[in-house]
Amino acid sequence: MPKIDAVDFFYLSMPDVLDIGDGSQDATLVRIEAGGHVGWGECEAAPLPTIAALVCPMSHSACKPVRDSVLGQPIDSADDIRRIGELVHANSLDLLQADHALSGIDMALWDLLGKRLGEPVYRLLGYKTAHPKLPYASMLFGDTPQETLEKGRQARANGYRAAKFGWGPIGKGSVQEDVDHFMAAREGLGEEGILLVDIGTVWVDNVEAAAARLPGLEAARATWLEEPFVSGALDAYKQLSKLTKTVKLAGGEGSHNVYMAQHMIDYAGVGYIQIDAGRIGGITPSKAVADYAAARGVTYVNHTFTSHLALSASLQPYAGLADDLISEYPVEPKQLALDITTNHIIPDANGQIHAPAAPGLGMTVNTTGLGPYLQDVVIQINGRVYYRTPALV
Amino acid sequence: MPKIDAVDFFYLSMPDVLDIGDGSQDATLVRIEAGGHVGWGECEAAPLPTIAALVCPMSHSACKPVRDSVLGQPIDSADDIRRIGELVHANSLDLLQADHALSGIDMALWDLLGKRLGEPVYRLLGYKTAHPKLPYASMLFGDTPQETLEKGRQARANGYRAAKFGWGPIGKGSVQEDVDHFMAAREGLGEEGILLVDIGTVWVDNVEAAAARLPGLEAARATWLEEPFVSGALDAYKQLSKLTKTVKLAGGEGSHNVYMAQHMIDYAGVGYIQIDAGRIGGITPSKAVADYAAARGVTYVNHTFTSHLALSASLQPYAGLADDLISEYPVEPKQLALDITTNHIIPDANGQIHAPAAPGLGMTVNTTGLGPYLQDVVIQINGRVYYRTPALV
Repeated sequence: MPKIDAVDFFYLSMPDVLDIGDGSQDATLVRIEAGGHVGWGECEAAPLPTIAALVCPMSHSACKPVRDSVLGQPIDSADDIRRIGELVHANSLDLLQADHALSGIDMALWDLLGKRLGEPVYRLLGYKTAHPKLPYASMLFGDTPQETLEKGRQARANGYRAAKFGWGPIGKGSVQEDVDHFMAAREGLGEEGILLVDIGTVWVDNVEAAAARLPGLEAARATWLEEPFVSGALDAYKQLSKLTKTVKLAGGEGSHNVYMAQHMIDYAGVGYIQIDAGRIGGITPSKAVADYAAARGVTYVNHTFTSHLALSASLQPYAGLADDLISEYPVEPKQLALDITTNHIIPDANGQIHAPAAPGLGMTVNTTGLGPYLQDVVIQINGRVYYRTPALV
Repeated sequence: MPKIDAVDFFYLSMPDVLDIGDGSQDATLVRIEAGGHVGWGECEAAPLPTIAALVCPMSHSACKPVRDSVLGQPIDSADDIRRIGELVHANSLDLLQADHALSGIDMALWDLLGKRLGEPVYRLLGYKTAHPKLPYASMLFGDTPQETLEKGRQARANGYRAAKFGWGPIGKGSVQEDVDHFMAAREGLGEEGILLVDIGTVWVDNVEAAAARLPGLEAARATWLEEPFVSGALDAYKQLSKLTKTVKLAGGEGSHNVYMAQHMIDYAGVGYIQIDAGRIGGITPSKAVADYAAARGVTYVNHTFTSHLALSASLQPYAGLADDLISEYPVEPKQLALDITTNHIIPDANGQIHAPAAPGLGMTVNTTGLGPYLQDVVIQINGRVYYRTPALV
């Protein structure tokens, strides 16, 4: 039975990282090798603390470096991946960053297993087929309503039937300014377009501030209102959910374990549960959330703002759920995110995307092209090197 | 108005860190300087990832290094400390380890402010006086029931009226083996002693495994059953809470923000909410939890397994709550934890402890004595030094 020979993390970055809500400016790429096979994953996480979580010295029996629970483990089946995830949770219980580190590892393990068995990951998860998804263009709001209008028009001109506008100026000015943006987005997208709005937790847990925007959101016929509050503010979500008429609440991207996503479903009144496989601990817990949501009439949606490696991983957990149609699709990623893979997941003639049918995650990591982005990191303690950026090629 | 001039983290460690459930084997010490005053705090966290969270490069607008939200900020009042905490939450929303890094910073800010204003921290929190607390000896279970019995006897001989046994073999063998340990602990402690039992999340979310031990726990007259499950397993806690007769559930130490602690109170049916000020984000959120718990009839208890600096910080948030009597007190810490301060919080003739009446946290950090524990850490990216262990003396 093959054992895990190597677990390598790579810190990739654009030359300049700007102070904007764009998570595609750097990346934590993960490579795992076992028995001659290679798997790739990506943590949606701050690279340096995530690397530190991989390699740090042990603090005590429940605060061990993540690598200790992965290296040397047998990897022969889906059960092995689940077992490794449980090991990380037990051995790194008190290492907060461990869940983010595990996320890329779990993806890489599924990719590796799929390649070894010649199956796409969604099949290993128990789905017979991957249903097409309707990608929404995921964009930042413009600085002005006019800019938002033009962004909406551009998304429609590019063939998108759905678009999400997020962050930017929303929630930071007056109610009327926000409503102007919502209406501009609707106008740009056209009457038929699916309009999604993302507040980026700006209101923290202020129900009143959120409630003041509900009439404007419903006038603009937004399908969902995403992250009005931080992930933990379950009671604020619940209160707001009772004040809505047509718009549904969406949230959950901050979940870094299955429980947090379940709490959003059980206690927060969301209609859409949004999971970032790069944060929640990978594909394994994402699939558990998809099952949990499906049993409770809540729609699963991926959260993806980075590479097409991350996009493929994020589509697998709900690939087989035909009714959960909407999918986040990054339309304005930085060049780094596009350059991580040589192939890409492109909308078809119907404007729909598909989880790749090729083995594993079906993506080819562009090892030779990533050199310019690779950050040369060295971590030493008492003169001993705990981490040095490994060779990528 | 003084501004924060320096935020320094120090990685301290015993020469050998053992694979046991003892969190006092290393430490993340925090020093903050502002306007000629110095404050100290301690993160209950893996040191290397926590240092990385302090200094890492920005990933995007909501994933910034923690230091960026602290350095240069004015610090003149309790409101400034709250404002800095909110800044960290907003600017480091997607940096998972940030809450642990913030914990020591928040403590150090309260210590600094208290020293500047000549007041103990509990006064700045609004308490007129610090009520005495009954420390329980916090110990690991013995490897055998006989060892557990002897540990209980020793705790009683040392003057403790309450003792908590945790981790070790419990939950890993048969129900009868566990019950033998519970009864041995009760015998060792004597009929009058307050017996507390800590399972250390071994059952993850398995209600059946926990329920099988309830009759034994109640026969041994345990006051609380602590952490039968991981922090997020709210529903498992709730189910178990309905099966208890006399023993109450305790949990919450894993909370890394106020919301998680509130969820334990709102949805998990705990009778005791246990907060580690070194994990939840410091004294500020701990005090918010104490207020929330008091309003709902749930008893607040500190979680402390390390130094007396951390112990003082953990007593402040509920110092003024006379009825919340029990306090965790580390009785078997490693020498490092004892050496962090030159003064210590010692039980009085009644076997009770008091939050120090001296300004700030009232503890003197033993800067000159910590040299042998200080780890020499260097973190470089592309040849630029992002962190090098600062001078401690």
